[in-house]
Amino acid sequence: MAFDIASLKFNEAGLIPVIAQQHNTGEVLMMAWMNAEAIAKSLETRRVTYWSRSRQQFWIKGETSGHTQALIDMRIDCDRDCILVLIDQVGAACHTNRRNCFYTSVIDGSEVELIRPMVD
Amino acid sequence: MAFDIASLKFNEAGLIPVIAQQHNTGEVLMMAWMNAEAIAKSLETRRVTYWSRSRQQFWIKGETSGHTQALIDMRIDCDRDCILVLIDQVGAACHTNRRNCFYTSVIDGSEVELIRPMVD
Repeated sequence: MAFDIASLKFNEAGLIPVIAQQHNTGEVLMMAWMNAEAIAKSLETRRVTYWSRSRQQFWIKGETSGHTQALIDMRIDCDRDCILVLIDQVGAACHTNRRNCFYTSVIDGSEVELIRPMVD
Repeated sequence: MAFDIASLKFNEAGLIPVIAQQHNTGEVLMMAWMNAEAIAKSLETRRVTYWSRSRQQFWIKGETSGHTQALIDMRIDCDRDCILVLIDQVGAACHTNRRNCFYTSVIDGSEVELIRPMVD
């Protein structure tokens, strides 16, 4: 069956949540958003491109930082309202210069920092 | 630092996206939503509890299907607007009776089904 981007379910802002996972380790790196055009760009260029909600513009991941995401596979969930991208991440996925964004753990009611920022 | 649920960023509907990952394999199983009370319930009971947007009620995962999710760890992302739960999933996470919801891959413009439903 041909993939039709219009068959996905976008929210009222025209966006769909995207989970980015390192393809060969399974590490969940980050979650961000795409609109229909960002999905098309990501598939066409194989460079993961999000839609920045704060800047209201396309966000070619790593364009300024060099921390690019090469698209290995794109998966659609059962409800067609979430995307999982398997990627090859260069350097840190997180803007805090950590490999992934989920570096805070809730343990016995406290927040614990699991990862320190990378030193380039 | 004490974990304060109110410090998270919920959307206009009072919800936050939650990624569920099998703790010992790294498999991304599903994405769903929690409100503040669902987060509190999940932490207290160690049974992952979402907020069902379609039914507008708490959704104790597996309550009817038996496909429960035991909470192993809860992680918060850098922007405090996404949660990653590391869980131990019993059976299928997906309502289609597949282990995970992301069973459709976009390959060369076509959708390819990667996983068949489990036979109980």
